[in-house]
Amino acid sequence: MNEVKRRRAAIRAAQTAGLETLLVTHPADVHYLTGFTGSNAAVVLGSQKPVLFTDGRYTTQAKEQAVGLKVLVEQKPAFVAAVEHIVATGQNPCGFDPTLTTVSSLERMRKAVTAKERRGFFQPIEGLVARLREIKDEDEIARMRKAAKLGCSLFDVALEAIAKGGTEVSVAAEMEFAARKAGADAMSFETIVASGPRSALPHGKASKAKLPKRGFVTLDFGVVLDGYCSDMTRTVFLGKAKQRERDVYHSVLEAQQAAVAMVRAGVTCGEVDEAARSVLRNAGLDGYFSHSTGHGVGLEIHEGPRVASKQEQVLEPGMVITIEPGVYIAGEFGVRIEDMVLVTKTGGEVLTSASPKSWMDWIEF
Amino acid sequence: MNEVKRRRAAIRAAQTAGLETLLVTHPADVHYLTGFTGSNAAVVLGSQKPVLFTDGRYTTQAKEQAVGLKVLVEQKPAFVAAVEHIVATGQNPCGFDPTLTTVSSLERMRKAVTAKERRGFFQPIEGLVARLREIKDEDEIARMRKAAKLGCSLFDVALEAIAKGGTEVSVAAEMEFAARKAGADAMSFETIVASGPRSALPHGKASKAKLPKRGFVTLDFGVVLDGYCSDMTRTVFLGKAKQRERDVYHSVLEAQQAAVAMVRAGVTCGEVDEAARSVLRNAGLDGYFSHSTGHGVGLEIHEGPRVASKQEQVLEPGMVITIEPGVYIAGEFGVRIEDMVLVTKTGGEVLTSASPKSWMDWIEF
Repeated sequence: MNEVKRRRAAIRAAQTAGLETLLVTHPADVHYLTGFTGSNAAVVLGSQKPVLFTDGRYTTQAKEQAVGLKVLVEQKPAFVAAVEHIVATGQNPCGFDPTLTTVSSLERMRKAVTAKERRGFFQPIEGLVARLREIKDEDEIARMRKAAKLGCSLFDVALEAIAKGGTEVSVAAEMEFAARKAGADAMSFETIVASGPRSALPHGKASKAKLPKRGFVTLDFGVVLDGYCSDMTRTVFLGKAKQRERDVYHSVLEAQQAAVAMVRAGVTCGEVDEAARSVLRNAGLDGYFSHSTGHGVGLEIHEGPRVASKQEQVLEPGMVITIEPGVYIAGEFGVRIEDMVLVTKTGGEVLTSASPKSWMDWIEF
Repeated sequence: MNEVKRRRAAIRAAQTAGLETLLVTHPADVHYLTGFTGSNAAVVLGSQKPVLFTDGRYTTQAKEQAVGLKVLVEQKPAFVAAVEHIVATGQNPCGFDPTLTTVSSLERMRKAVTAKERRGFFQPIEGLVARLREIKDEDEIARMRKAAKLGCSLFDVALEAIAKGGTEVSVAAEMEFAARKAGADAMSFETIVASGPRSALPHGKASKAKLPKRGFVTLDFGVVLDGYCSDMTRTVFLGKAKQRERDVYHSVLEAQQAAVAMVRAGVTCGEVDEAARSVLRNAGLDGYFSHSTGHGVGLEIHEGPRVASKQEQVLEPGMVITIEPGVYIAGEFGVRIEDMVLVTKTGGEVLTSASPKSWMDWIEF
């Protein structure tokens, strides 16, 4: 079972850091380590049998999903019950993730330990599970391939919907309906359909705006399938484009392809970002590229690594990242093109290659 | 403008607590206080002009939405830029919400202040904005009525989809498609369609399970419309029910109605919970009611107040809460009935009354 291997890796990493136990409360981390998909849980991992604490809404579900763990249903907050268990079984020092634990929660955790024992009981350890999650195992890669494939099929749905006309949100509705019918649990984020001048909004969620007679339409969308997220962007053009619009599109495409070509194990995230950014710089467009090139994706839509300027993190086989440069000219138009890319030893495998990204001038009014 | 009033109320509450500024980073709080709906922002409120910090993805959107605020786009994390601004303008002590701030973020905030100034610079203040948000203003109530109304219309869609047969997720897909076409931004949570023995899962997200020939189907769903969430649950029965199934349904309905009848300003949340719980206790079913009776709802699907056992918080006019008792008999079946209720001086107004909740035996195979 994958979860058993993942728990072993987490425990090993915690022990290497001098910890007796690891307290895991972030839902996606809990999902990764146990299979449990409920919204509230705390997991205690260490040398003893792992325990999952949750509440009465999840009694049945937790026992079904969290195979190999002892499941305890509690009235009190799961993380408080977990800390009391760690105290009672003397499994300290206990690692917790300070990037995923609120100031109030840590305060409550501390109160569950006697003043005498408190010193050194809780040890902050950042992103221990997040780092494991960056490298997808075979089961995860298989799921992500399926999610990416379903994502690509939605682009075809979008093209049909756009051809019919209507509003941005009517296009999103058709895509989401198709996703659900094909078995998606949900969309991985609010679907972006940004048309005309709205395409200059990098996060232009589908609005009631009517599709324009001419102009770009940026479609950024993803599904959650079997727990895993897809994420891709395509930008199409309605009507006849001007040379400048074509030029910008081609610069973004070139930037995106340059970054994809840079992907392979051993390269830094900053180098991938720079591959995209330098193309846009040469075209005099880098001032309009207002975000980073990409991010890891998996159980969550945004995971490590960050594919951003000067990031020194090195790509490793099994990472799945997005490559999504964009150019946004406020009040005029914007273009973004995004693929999901699996990092391999020798390169990058585009998981969303089923959807074309060459210039789309297929709609002429 | 409502946002101006809300910011004034927040500043007043902060000043009463001896704070010079309030740092707000939680997206729903930012939305409430500024109108900005992006996923990343930090707002500084105090006696000086309010400032909103965000990143390059939101340059245009923030300026459009956050009327009356100075908008600053930063490369560094928004909350770090905000703290540097507070330091530079000498607006300390600064309140922050420890329930919405991670241990790591507070650490970074502290680092932005010189060691000399650090003492007392940051003051934890829990739920200051959350408490304001519990009482909806007229604009919010109008939006919530619309969201609730759209929610109710989806129950009709669900009934039609159920009549056609198919899987749980096919029913959810039809509901979500209708929601989107009617202008919903999104669903307020993953739609629950839990049929047959799965109805015993309080959080049984729609699965690929085929609808059974006979048994309960629990539908728990909501939309986000104009930023505001709806939330309601109806349970229907396919085929011919046994007496025990009818009895359980009627007990849950009676419990739900008793709790709704208890709602009015001045009553405690614990009293509302007890009204539902005591009905189920008298029916010998309270052991199967494994969660609390309800919760506040608004910009987020779960807000204050908590309508739970022994909660002493008093209901106030303008609160919108859910009333959703349920009975879950593992391996057999479950029933939950939920309405959104607006608290008034004299009672509770059910916002989801358009959907019937009397016994549904309308499908006979």
